[in-house]
Amino acid sequence: MTNSSDTKPGLPFPFPVVAWDQGEVVLIDQTLLPDELAYRRCGDIPTLCQAIIELAVRGAPAIGVAAAYGLALAWNLARREVGDDNERIWPIFQKHRAELAATRPTAVNLFWALDRCGGLAEQMIAGGAATEAIGAALLADAAAVREEDVAMCRAMGEAGAELLPDFATVLTHCNAGGLATGGYGTAIGVIYAAKAAGKTLHVFADETRPLLQGARLTAWELVDQGIDVTVLCDSAAATVLRQGKIDAVITGSDRVAANGDAANKIGTYPLAVLAHRHDVPFYIAAPASTFDPDTPDGDGIEIEERDPAEVHHWRAERTTAVGAKAWNPAFDVTPASLITAFITEHGVLRPPFGKSLAPVLARPGKPA
Amino acid sequence: MTNSSDTKPGLPFPFPVVAWDQGEVVLIDQTLLPDELAYRRCGDIPTLCQAIIELAVRGAPAIGVAAAYGLALAWNLARREVGDDNERIWPIFQKHRAELAATRPTAVNLFWALDRCGGLAEQMIAGGAATEAIGAALLADAAAVREEDVAMCRAMGEAGAELLPDFATVLTHCNAGGLATGGYGTAIGVIYAAKAAGKTLHVFADETRPLLQGARLTAWELVDQGIDVTVLCDSAAATVLRQGKIDAVITGSDRVAANGDAANKIGTYPLAVLAHRHDVPFYIAAPASTFDPDTPDGDGIEIEERDPAEVHHWRAERTTAVGAKAWNPAFDVTPASLITAFITEHGVLRPPFGKSLAPVLARPGKPA
Repeated sequence: MTNSSDTKPGLPFPFPVVAWDQGEVVLIDQTLLPDELAYRRCGDIPTLCQAIIELAVRGAPAIGVAAAYGLALAWNLARREVGDDNERIWPIFQKHRAELAATRPTAVNLFWALDRCGGLAEQMIAGGAATEAIGAALLADAAAVREEDVAMCRAMGEAGAELLPDFATVLTHCNAGGLATGGYGTAIGVIYAAKAAGKTLHVFADETRPLLQGARLTAWELVDQGIDVTVLCDSAAATVLRQGKIDAVITGSDRVAANGDAANKIGTYPLAVLAHRHDVPFYIAAPASTFDPDTPDGDGIEIEERDPAEVHHWRAERTTAVGAKAWNPAFDVTPASLITAFITEHGVLRPPFGKSLAPVLARPGKPA
Repeated sequence: MTNSSDTKPGLPFPFPVVAWDQGEVVLIDQTLLPDELAYRRCGDIPTLCQAIIELAVRGAPAIGVAAAYGLALAWNLARREVGDDNERIWPIFQKHRAELAATRPTAVNLFWALDRCGGLAEQMIAGGAATEAIGAALLADAAAVREEDVAMCRAMGEAGAELLPDFATVLTHCNAGGLATGGYGTAIGVIYAAKAAGKTLHVFADETRPLLQGARLTAWELVDQGIDVTVLCDSAAATVLRQGKIDAVITGSDRVAANGDAANKIGTYPLAVLAHRHDVPFYIAAPASTFDPDTPDGDGIEIEERDPAEVHHWRAERTTAVGAKAWNPAFDVTPASLITAFITEHGVLRPPFGKSLAPVLARPGKPA
């Protein structure tokens, strides 16, 4: 199925980013967008891990949903391997859980989902539950992780939409949209909610090098949802901010530390510095599962360095001179002092964050 | 001829960016680098204009050299068309001069070279010079524009090299190297001069979207000259600055206003803001011909907006979602307040620029 400006892809909304079908985890393959809307089927854990590593599924909340379904898959596979024996299933399940945990280091939602669903299995085993019942519970819990994420994103979107005037122009970075989540979106969810509330919006989308999630994914889903979008090079964002064209910058986050320092796609930090310089509010939209009470501040957030090949090539084509090195950090950390407010399902949380972040840091189900 | 890490391209240095060969202007075709080192021959003015528009030759000083040779070509062509008749040649020459002036609006060197060489022809006509002698003088003056540029870049490089410690790490943006000039380079000329003075350097090169002049051209020429270079996405520059890895940021400029506000490749302004935030000196290396006494400040600098197709595609491949718009400003303006010093052939000029820029603004040969 090919996306074009003439044919509506006919995708349901919220987008079916991660789903369960015939015993497999099925993902929209985001490496192929916007050229092609295709699905990747993951019938085993290495295939799912590879999909996460290659960013076929990406975005902290979506990775969390994929990991939750991954544990349901892991339980099923182990059961097929050793039969209905929880004691023999457990070490296989744990091995798969560790493989999923090792895919990407920064997004806290991954670890949160693995802890939540893994903890559920552990608790049910201790309670003497039947193997089949545990498998069913894991599947139901994965669906719940997704549904809760959509509900949280809707709540977050509604809270954030009130911050935007009608005819607002919003600048965003990377893709914190439906494709990055259970289907509705965090930063872009705010846009969807504002549109649903009858507002007209225009979005400037940073293209987001090196993998162009803004140009490819944010632009694709905004076009799909009928919202006016202009793509610009990351380095041109400073100019639109300076020109006074932007009412608000809204991004997602992959992990927010307890003090409000927030990791997000590389390029978010300079955007926040520039927004601050030009008195444009800088918002981060993120569900409570992205806030990490165990990381006191940004210095404690591990920043993934990805393969330099992503900088050296655009798809198959080499773009850098042979003989040059490349450096490819995937994230940077925006200090809390540059963040105007967090948009969460608990409302809009403003400084001082030491006090205002309490409800999202204390959320039940948070990993200890 | 293909460039690879194993074979030295064997180019002379300073690079033969623009040359005159058998009655034609010959350029290194920078759209093909780093994949291929090939030359583009321009036997008429539309071909040369197209080469400037397509960025086969780019960089403010190199455009100036190309324009100077272009006027020698224009004189020759007009002479071939109408014979040795200065009065009949003049309107054809002026038409070609206007075509060259209309190629790109931001780089002041283009207009400076057209004024210098056009003025020379005008003066010689008024003095009753022979047609052939005027053609020879235009050719000699174009060569002089190039030689003077190389000499200025060397002088600039030597002045700038003193600002760098041994084992310095320098961050640069776009390509202000040999390829952007008569062959030696402005910002990268400082690196070459520091190396010639026995210093060991490491360069971080912003890839410089959308056309990747950093990844393609800066990396290529630094590898060619045996200097260690690491390419990074433009949006990762903030992180290296924050990590304290950078001793100095050095860029070129396409036009410096009388107050020191400087236009340069899109992405330079946010880089200067970040350098300032992290107390890293931010230098602009530019010859006197780049300083424009007729533009009082940055608001008066016309910023070229280039074809959105440059953002929508990487070479033949579409990268943005169909249905999205794109915005593609080629330059931004860095306010003088963020510039630590200008590195010029008149030495290192520090604030207050109202006083220190006098020698580069008053330079003889400056257009009135």
